[in-house]
Amino acid sequence: MKRPLIFVTNDDSFHSKGIKLLIEIMQTFGDVVVVAPIEQQSGQSHAITTKEPLRFHKIEEKEGYTAYVCNGTPVDCVKIAFNIILKDSKPDLLVSGINHGSNASINTIYSGTMAAVFEAVAEGIPSIGFSVDNHCLDADFSYCSDFIKQITKDVLENGLDPNVCLNVNFPKDSIKGVKICHQAKAYWNEDFVQRTDPMGQHYYWLTGVYNCKDDSPRADHIAMKDGFCAITPMQIDFTAYEVLEKYKKRFEK
Amino acid sequence: MKRPLIFVTNDDSFHSKGIKLLIEIMQTFGDVVVVAPIEQQSGQSHAITTKEPLRFHKIEEKEGYTAYVCNGTPVDCVKIAFNIILKDSKPDLLVSGINHGSNASINTIYSGTMAAVFEAVAEGIPSIGFSVDNHCLDADFSYCSDFIKQITKDVLENGLDPNVCLNVNFPKDSIKGVKICHQAKAYWNEDFVQRTDPMGQHYYWLTGVYNCKDDSPRADHIAMKDGFCAITPMQIDFTAYEVLEKYKKRFEK
Repeated sequence: MKRPLIFVTNDDSFHSKGIKLLIEIMQTFGDVVVVAPIEQQSGQSHAITTKEPLRFHKIEEKEGYTAYVCNGTPVDCVKIAFNIILKDSKPDLLVSGINHGSNASINTIYSGTMAAVFEAVAEGIPSIGFSVDNHCLDADFSYCSDFIKQITKDVLENGLDPNVCLNVNFPKDSIKGVKICHQAKAYWNEDFVQRTDPMGQHYYWLTGVYNCKDDSPRADHIAMKDGFCAITPMQIDFTAYEVLEKYKKRFEK
Repeated sequence: MKRPLIFVTNDDSFHSKGIKLLIEIMQTFGDVVVVAPIEQQSGQSHAITTKEPLRFHKIEEKEGYTAYVCNGTPVDCVKIAFNIILKDSKPDLLVSGINHGSNASINTIYSGTMAAVFEAVAEGIPSIGFSVDNHCLDADFSYCSDFIKQITKDVLENGLDPNVCLNVNFPKDSIKGVKICHQAKAYWNEDFVQRTDPMGQHYYWLTGVYNCKDDSPRADHIAMKDGFCAITPMQIDFTAYEVLEKYKKRFEK
């Protein structure tokens, strides 16, 4: 039987611990091709690189496993993989992560990890983003391995609905079980740190405080904080369908 | 009566023709504050700048109008505006554009113009993105002015539903009327152009061919190509609600 072809990427760069563990897990399921950013690309969302040229090169290779690094964003990595490196062999699955930091709730929209997942779902490829509520670069995510394996096995065997992908967020420590969630309503209260350069000019660092406006136990952020593996099925149609009829009457004069 | 406070931004930079016309139109409605990227930021999506410091400075000022330029992305511009420049005065409306190029269908997810709109809706501020199906930097968008005025007047008077914003896309030439649309299903067929540098290394430019998979006259891309001003009401909840119950049974074992 042909082994499935699994494409792996992330936004924390090829040199992060999270992607190493994800690659190791995916090798138990199939042949693995990696194209990952050479540098940290957190917060790059669905950005693509058009002002500078893209470059990539092979960094590791062994039986059933090839890894490349690329100077672009996570979405650039997916586009290079699907259109150049894997031009003649469509992957059976894309997995992105394991991200160092939660991509639940509002973080989804800033996330390079989830942007790679969205890019794959637009191309009709089943895709899953894995993230852990722990920014520490040296964190050990191996307590998530069994859940990652179960979810991956299920998706490889049964697929996902058309245009649907999964955003999986793990709690910081042990895991009580799985909850299917919705994306929590939340926002960031930015807190810019002002500094002054040696020429006397101000500059600012973007920092912020997270605010959750949603206390449902099925909100992804809440379920994750409650100790569950929060799986949020996602899609990339931004249409606000519930107001379409009302706005037809209002704007189509 | 207090004039409304209107915040203007874009992704084509402060030095684009589109934003100049949008500023001119908004000045007929209220006091205008602009924070726009100093350089082109197309395709930057919802990216935020965290690896480099942000800088901004005032570039123009007259009665009821102040404009700043910023070295960051469109979302950085919105965050700087809402948290530093307009810290004590919440805007009544955010408008973004007028973008040189369509942001209908799949383009929404790559768009810096629409990311600024989404950032505002997350903060509870009514927001509208305006784009024209014409990438030419020297194009004259004044044939869109009356429609922009009508939509702006309506939103200032009646607001928008909570968590809903508008993605407005104009055809390249004359406008037949308004159509309320959904986001068309579409994708890009990437076509990387390979070049070789003087050191013999390959590099790639990202280009692509647009493919629409949706032929409904109410699909935003189609309505725009049919000569209509396509208004797509949008929201930023990625949850695929239609599969939640099914996936509870499947994954919560």
